[in-house]
This record gives sequence, C-alpha cells and structure tokens, in this order.
Amino acid sequence: MRRINQRAVLDLLRRGGPATRPQVAKDTGLSKPTVSQALLALEAAGLARATGHTSTGTGRSAVLYEADPTAGYVLGVDIGREHIRVAVSDLGRTMVARRDARNTARSGSALVASVGRLAREIVAEAGLTDADIVVRVLGSPGVADPAKRCFRHAPNLPGWGKPGLLDDLEAALGAGLVVENDANLTAVGEWESGAARGASVVGCLMIGTGVGMGLMVDGRVFRGATGAAGEIGYLPYGRTQSGGEVPARGHLEEATAAQSVVRGARELGLGTAKSAREVFRLAREGDELAQRAVRTEADRLAYTVASVAAVVDPELIVLGGGIGTAADLLLDPIDRALRSFTPLVPTVVQGELGDDGVLTGAMSVGLRAAEGLVFERRVGAA
Amino acid sequence: MRRINQRAVLDLLRRGGPATRPQVAKDTGLSKPTVSQALLALEAAGLARATGHTSTGTGRSAVLYEADPTAGYVLGVDIGREHIRVAVSDLGRTMVARRDARNTARSGSALVASVGRLAREIVAEAGLTDADIVVRVLGSPGVADPAKRCFRHAPNLPGWGKPGLLDDLEAALGAGLVVENDANLTAVGEWESGAARGASVVGCLMIGTGVGMGLMVDGRVFRGATGAAGEIGYLPYGRTQSGGEVPARGHLEEATAAQSVVRGARELGLGTAKSAREVFRLAREGDELAQRAVRTEADRLAYTVASVAAVVDPELIVLGGGIGTAADLLLDPIDRALRSFTPLVPTVVQGELGDDGVLTGAMSVGLRAAEGLVFERRVGAA
Repeated sequence: MRRINQRAVLDLLRRGGPATRPQVAKDTGLSKPTVSQALLALEAAGLARATGHTSTGTGRSAVLYEADPTAGYVLGVDIGREHIRVAVSDLGRTMVARRDARNTARSGSALVASVGRLAREIVAEAGLTDADIVVRVLGSPGVADPAKRCFRHAPNLPGWGKPGLLDDLEAALGAGLVVENDANLTAVGEWESGAARGASVVGCLMIGTGVGMGLMVDGRVFRGATGAAGEIGYLPYGRTQSGGEVPARGHLEEATAAQSVVRGARELGLGTAKSAREVFRLAREGDELAQRAVRTEADRLAYTVASVAAVVDPELIVLGGGIGTAADLLLDPIDRALRSFTPLVPTVVQGELGDDGVLTGAMSVGLRAAEGLVFERRVGAA
Repeated sequence: MRRINQRAVLDLLRRGGPATRPQVAKDTGLSKPTVSQALLALEAAGLARATGHTSTGTGRSAVLYEADPTAGYVLGVDIGREHIRVAVSDLGRTMVARRDARNTARSGSALVASVGRLAREIVAEAGLTDADIVVRVLGSPGVADPAKRCFRHAPNLPGWGKPGLLDDLEAALGAGLVVENDANLTAVGEWESGAARGASVVGCLMIGTGVGMGLMVDGRVFRGATGAAGEIGYLPYGRTQSGGEVPARGHLEEATAAQSVVRGARELGLGTAKSAREVFRLAREGDELAQRAVRTEADRLAYTVASVAAVVDPELIVLGGGIGTAADLLLDPIDRALRSFTPLVPTVVQGELGDDGVLTGAMSVGLRAAEGLVFERRVGAA
C-alpha cells in the first residue's frame, strides 16, 4: 500500500509539475501524513526533491516538491541511410546531450560500431555513465524480426537483414534495447507533442531515402499482423511493367523517395540538382523545371495518401521527416490532386518535429518505460 | 444483486448451452438456492425454460434448463444493387424465416418500399409480430452518414445518398434500425463463424456490383475516422489517364467489380458471357478466353490485396460474397501475382459464408444487442 501511495504521489508530480504537500494531498485524495511520508521516502530514494517555496503573501510559505528529473535517463537513437542521431534525455524530457552525424558506414558492422561510439561519447559528454541510462530506444527503417533478431524490409541499410544484428546492436548500446520502426516513432512523437496531437486515426508519412508510414490509432501504434503496417514503399505503384497488370516490386518506394525527386528533376533537364532539398529550393526561387519535379512528387504523394485513405480512412496525414520541410510547396498540389480523383480526402499537414521526429518519439516511448523502471529499482515493485 | 445473478445464469445458458441447476451453480460460482431462485425468475420472465432431463444412469435425473431462444428475434437485411435478402433469427441463432429477392427498384423510395414489404412478409411468415423483433440490422454498400441520415459512397444504389433516407428506412422497417456497411457485416460474420475466426487483423474483400472491404482488428470492426475505412473502390488504380500521374477517380472499383470480369471477357472476344458467374464457369470448362479474363481479375485482386497489405499488414484476406465462389480459380494466381511484386503476402482464403455473409454478420451484431435488450425489457436493468 505504501508503495502504491508513493507511486501515486510521484505520478502526480510528474504529470502536474511542482506542488506543495497540501496540493498533493488534495489532488491524490491521500491524507497529509501519508503524503508527507511518501514524499520523504521519494526524496530518500532520489525520485523527488524540494525545488523551492511558494510565497503566499500571508507570510507563510510551503515547500514545493517536484519529480527529480535526474533520477534516470533515456538514450534515443535515430538511424537512417544518410544520418545517425543520438540523444540523451532526463526523466523531465529535457535533452541533456545530442549528436548528429552523417552515416558513412558501408556495412552493418561498421554502422553498429559508429552508433555505439556516438552513444558512448554523448553519455560521457552529458557527465553520465552507462548505469544512468534506464532505457535505450532505437528507431530504424524496417521491421524488427524478433525471431531472426534483425530488421526486415530495410533494403537501404546494408547488413540490416543479417540474423543476429539486434544482438550486435545490444552489445554496442546496452542490454534491453527497444527497437522500433522510425516512421512509427515519428508518429508517436507527432501524436504526443507535434502536429497529430489527439488525432483518432493518423498516418505519418516519412519520405527520405525510403518511404514509410507510422499509423496511430487511438494513441497507439498500429502494427498489423507482422509489424509491417505502414510499409507503404510496397504499395503497388501504378505504372506497370511492359503494359501488364502487375506492377514492379516496390515501385512506389522507387517512385517517391527523395532520390526520385532529384532523378525526376534531372530527367526534366535540371542537370545541376544534387539533392531533393536543392530541387525544393530552386522551385521556391521560381525555377520551372524544379516546380514541375515538385508537382510530380506531389502527385505521387497524393497517390500514396489516396491509397492509405481507401484502406484506413485517416483523420489526418502528417508529412514527417525531410519531406515535411517542403510542405509549403507540396500541400496545395497534394490536396488538388486528391480532390481530382477520390472523395476520401484527409487533411494533410506538415509535421511539427522535422528531423527530430524519430528522436522525439524514441524519448516518448523510452520515458514511459523508464518511469516505471526507475521506481521499481529505487523503491521496489508495488 | 438479484438481477446481476439472473443475468449471469442466463449468459451461462446462452454461451454454454443447456445445463442442470448443479452445473449452473458450479459454473457461475453461485449457491444452489440462488441459482434456483434465478432460474425461477428467468422462467417466469420467458427468458429460460426447461428443455428435458439428464439421465445419469443412477436412477436420478435432473431438469435441464436452456436460454429460451424464442424470447426475442432479430431482423437482418442485406441490400445490394442486384439483390435484397431478409431474414429473421431467434435468440438461439436459428434462422426462422428467410427471403431472397432481386432488387429491381429504380429509385430509393421504391427500394425502401420493397424492403419494408419483404420484411413484413417474412415476419408474418414466421408467425411473429413487429413487437417480437427486438433489433433490426441492415447492411448496405456505402457509409452511413449520421448527420445527413443517408449513405455516402454508395453510387450503385440510386437515391441512397438522399438526406433523410435512413428515416425512410426506419419508417419502413421499424424504429432503432442499426445500419452498417455490408462488407463490415460480412467481416463480422466471417470473423465470428466463418473463415476468419480469431484472426488478429483481417480484411474481408467483397466484390460484386461494387467493391468494398470489411476490416476487423482484434475482433472489432475498424471504421477509420469517418467510417470509410475499407472503401477500397477508391484505391487509385494503376492505369493513369492519358499517361499522367494521377489516376481516374474510383478506377479500382471500375476495374475490379463483377461487371468488369464480363467486360474483360467480352473485350477478349468472349461475346456470349452475360455474368461473372458465367465467365467463371466457362473458365472451369477450359475456355481459354474466359481463363484469361479470370487471370486479369486475379491480377487486379492481387493489386488490391497488395495495397491493403502495405497499409495494415493483415494476417488474412478473405474473399467474401460472390467472388468467393470463384476462389478455386482465383487463389493460386492471386498468390503468384502477389509474390511477384511484394514481400508482404497475406494468406488469402475463400470466405465460408458465401452469399450469407452480410446476413450472418447482421445477425451477430443484432443478437449481441438483443440479448441485453430482451433482459432489460423482461427483468429490468440491473
């Protein structure tokens, strides 16, 4: 019972912010002596701390308590074909260290080594040790295969499908590693603290080296039967091989991913474009070829959104990750294209988290797990 | 408390079938006097009845009680472009009357009148009155619009989008009418008592005059944000207009629906085919043109299944309704086509309910509601 009360007091401080003893008693319904006892125990365990005094104006003041954000830390890792991002957050959601690097690895083992090195560096940089990290969450393209201990459907990351890869990642990053699809994490992030707050059914499109979608239903990730829900790179894209009915494998991914914007622009004669970002910049500056390439990308995105809409009827589609930065160019033509060929037109918006989507979602997932773990370790399971 | 015990005893008899007083006491954990009292009250209310005796071989025998299936009835209606099916089932899931008719109505009001007439006829035929019908469930293509009181996305049924149509249907069929998408009802039916029993994520494809899909997730219909989840007739089908990127509206529905099988066969030179069923029959008899038309339909279905798989990763796809009857011709080529262009290949199976899918699902939905309603009416709410 005592542990349950302590947990209730701690949860209140975590959700509601700093509070005095009487406020805690009022909001938890516990007696003041029980609250005092719980706060003492939480302080002793390093889970809560005094953070100042109220000044009530009557001359009396009360001690304000808060959940101690330094009671534990979460490590978040975002791996993409082009980048590695690593961050450490305390239990109060403050990012205490962050590092972005280019992914230059040409093999799975090189990538695992890079990620491990970066993680060790920023943990040290934050003045922490490995023991301070309570939960580690890694976002990656693909779907974790719990049996073969690797990622399926991540063709853009060499070595990622090698059985045992997840064990190598755990060896490099620490035991109990949580792995999750990057688009799913972005969707969690956008749903908890971004553009999709509270949406009932929302798809978060990620377009970068590959394409993917995180699907949230009533605040939870929708994974499907084998974890592959949202692997929209496998949508059979319209143009068929040699006029047949059956499309080429993975065609949508090829047609829609960031390189295809560049390829499309080059085919249109824009020989200088080196990145999708550059094509978007040229389009903003009025370059007609770049604008045509953008319209083509918008049409393809509309095709994707229409497919998703016909299957799950989302309230909202969020353009997450890199493609979200071109929302100013894409949203209107996507909406126009959708209205021209389907009556199911969800609202399409720009993500609010940009390149931080995966890390934000990783922290959300990690913090949820860490709160319970830290309490159990320091106080014992209720 | 007495009502709660009565409800527990009744639910046990409904789920577990006939049982003696001691068996009921054992399985509910209630005392024998409490069970006796509850059974007396249920008998008096017409909710349970004696159905015979056990013969134990020791010379003693005990009375067997069962839930009285005649305590209430459910009316189910299945409306399609080509057919109207109406049935009445008792609370024991026995269909006591059933009528199938061709839908020859050319307007919404004519169809409403036909449906109402058929319903009155079979209620009378079953020796019942309107008061015996506890719940009425109607399945139709499209999505019920609770604000405008009509169906959206049901272009094949004239007048079905007229505001107030649902009021007209209630006037014809009785108050408290439950309306539901026909593919959703088929999915409920196949999940509860057909080919999809217990599947975690399952899509039930209906191909007839139009196309639709009922999606079940963990035993519940997945509706999406506006009820349009599974409206796969709006999947942007691959072939684009005049070589552009944007497909024609509703293209998949046009390409895949039953008439297209016929049209496809005719285009191939099979001038005599009048119905999809006939094309399938000719294909079975070895007609090469018909077989080519079937392969084309299989490719289009594979396209649909692949689209659904990339979005929600179902464990199972059930071919429901009319197209299910051609599963012997379609399943192998669908599987082959899928494997040729996507790694996400769900199991595709024939539905077990055939043309009864919608009515079976309507009865499932109706019976669930009726059980509670009948108890409340006859005993009072707990």
